[in-house]
Amino acid sequence: MAQSFEQLLGAVEDRIRELPAFRRQPVRLYEPAVYTMNLGGKRIRPVLALMACQLFGGSVEKVLDPAVGLEVFHNFTLLHDDVMDRADMRRGKPTVHVKWDTNTAILTGDAMFAVAVRLMAGAPAESLRAVLQAFEALAVGVCEGQQYDMNFETQAQVSMAEYMEMIRLKTAVLIAGSLQIGAEAAGAPAASVARLYAYGTQIGLAFQLQDDLLDLYGDESKFGKKIGSDIRENKKTYLYIKALELLSPADAAALEKAFAEPTRPETEAGKVALVKGLYEKVGVRQQCEAAVQAMFKAAEAELDAIPATETDAEALTVLKQFTAKLLGRDY
Amino acid sequence: MAQSFEQLLGAVEDRIRELPAFRRQPVRLYEPAVYTMNLGGKRIRPVLALMACQLFGGSVEKVLDPAVGLEVFHNFTLLHDDVMDRADMRRGKPTVHVKWDTNTAILTGDAMFAVAVRLMAGAPAESLRAVLQAFEALAVGVCEGQQYDMNFETQAQVSMAEYMEMIRLKTAVLIAGSLQIGAEAAGAPAASVARLYAYGTQIGLAFQLQDDLLDLYGDESKFGKKIGSDIRENKKTYLYIKALELLSPADAAALEKAFAEPTRPETEAGKVALVKGLYEKVGVRQQCEAAVQAMFKAAEAELDAIPATETDAEALTVLKQFTAKLLGRDY
Repeated sequence: MAQSFEQLLGAVEDRIRELPAFRRQPVRLYEPAVYTMNLGGKRIRPVLALMACQLFGGSVEKVLDPAVGLEVFHNFTLLHDDVMDRADMRRGKPTVHVKWDTNTAILTGDAMFAVAVRLMAGAPAESLRAVLQAFEALAVGVCEGQQYDMNFETQAQVSMAEYMEMIRLKTAVLIAGSLQIGAEAAGAPAASVARLYAYGTQIGLAFQLQDDLLDLYGDESKFGKKIGSDIRENKKTYLYIKALELLSPADAAALEKAFAEPTRPETEAGKVALVKGLYEKVGVRQQCEAAVQAMFKAAEAELDAIPATETDAEALTVLKQFTAKLLGRDY
Repeated sequence: MAQSFEQLLGAVEDRIRELPAFRRQPVRLYEPAVYTMNLGGKRIRPVLALMACQLFGGSVEKVLDPAVGLEVFHNFTLLHDDVMDRADMRRGKPTVHVKWDTNTAILTGDAMFAVAVRLMAGAPAESLRAVLQAFEALAVGVCEGQQYDMNFETQAQVSMAEYMEMIRLKTAVLIAGSLQIGAEAAGAPAASVARLYAYGTQIGLAFQLQDDLLDLYGDESKFGKKIGSDIRENKKTYLYIKALELLSPADAAALEKAFAEPTRPETEAGKVALVKGLYEKVGVRQQCEAAVQAMFKAAEAELDAIPATETDAEALTVLKQFTAKLLGRDY
């Protein structure tokens, strides 16, 4: 019988809590890792790995270590990204490089990456190589995505294709790779692993576009960060790029001008309002929502193309409900 | 027939030159990796992996990818260590965080770690898990060693036992792990892998103590960095710790006082001379040389304890000559 989301999440949380890898000396190295792992992430990636495993009839226990490894890897990327992006807060708490220092964030991050490899090595023998290859591919992809993201800061023009490729690498590859690892551990047929990977890619892209929307149109109390931060930081998101495509030359120039300089505290409210107004002129919010819906449909089509004989019907429902919930966040 | 050091080094260099993992987009991510890999390291770790593989009759080709992965991993640690230690030069060239910037050094380093995992995944099926476990153990160890090294900067007292444990983790674990990976790929018996690992640990410790000696007593033109940098940076090395053990209370206090403050350019020559004088009073150079010799003997004993029936006599000679040369560097 397939396990529910709550049961799978419980299994992940239990394993994270008892993880011996972080209960070691020197404390100074591992304490920030425990701190980060306990900041209350949603454990999306390990839960997806478990769901993919049980989808193909695999025992969830088999893939628990690699699944937790995905969460450790994800948290490692947060540590380093927060240094690179100079982010002071994460989930309402000071980031590691603020609470400790930059060297700590670098080195503890590296140790977390090493621990993630350790956990991947816990995959069942028959799927070890496949799990490992999925892992190294997603690890390389995430680094490439972060590099593109940093490139975009100084790159004058970013096309929609470039943006989509960046978020595919930075976000979707890890979501898709988590599903892939779960499916590989269950010994799923290659064609179905590929379908599930494609499903994960669409879900991951939609998830990131949703995040772009929430940044501007979200409920501040639910979203947990200040509304409009992408505009204040001149981030070239889906909304910005789509608006540039659709706006008149004069309005497009005004938008580019607004993004051309660092935001000053005394004018930031006006800037957010100006940009929001330009976005509304051409309906980029609706465009983005439509893109999320289209991706969600494309994702479901991939999932539905997997032969029903290979999958557990209950587990399929559990997975579908989880991703629907993931993309149905209020805003 | 066993391959010579030159043949093995050639195989490593060829594989590094044609490595597809770094010929990818975005260029900004991979260019600093290629730069670092081409700074002219001695390829000690991959060569040791190949030597260990052929020692147990394994085909060197089998372990070439993991061996190169060890070199990529080692270079990743250099990138991050140079950021953490604020080192501007490495092998006579500007370090990555100087030539590019800190974010580049962090992210390219991460990508190199991921590529190292990719190369480990190229191990033969029958030894994949063993190779992987050796790799994650050495990766965790190196991070722990770097943390202890950073802790020592602000730690008032560092005992010899603490120092030896730090260099075991930071340096010896990677040397020993490289030998282990080669031996595992060849399918060596567990008892002999353990012997070879112990050999590598002793060689690695001796190698680091040799480095401590070279820093002060080396030939500047051969060593490639300025003599006495450990003293100028107040680094608590074997020489410093042993001197504190042996000096009279008054002299020990003078040594501690010299290390208590950052070195100023106008007094650095005097400081190096003062500390060197204190070291000579109690013969710490000779003590350290004796320790290197003792470790070398202990290492050879481990190697000699491996049953001759398991090993290739020629390959054994190649390994012994290489490590002897490694520890016989002029100073």
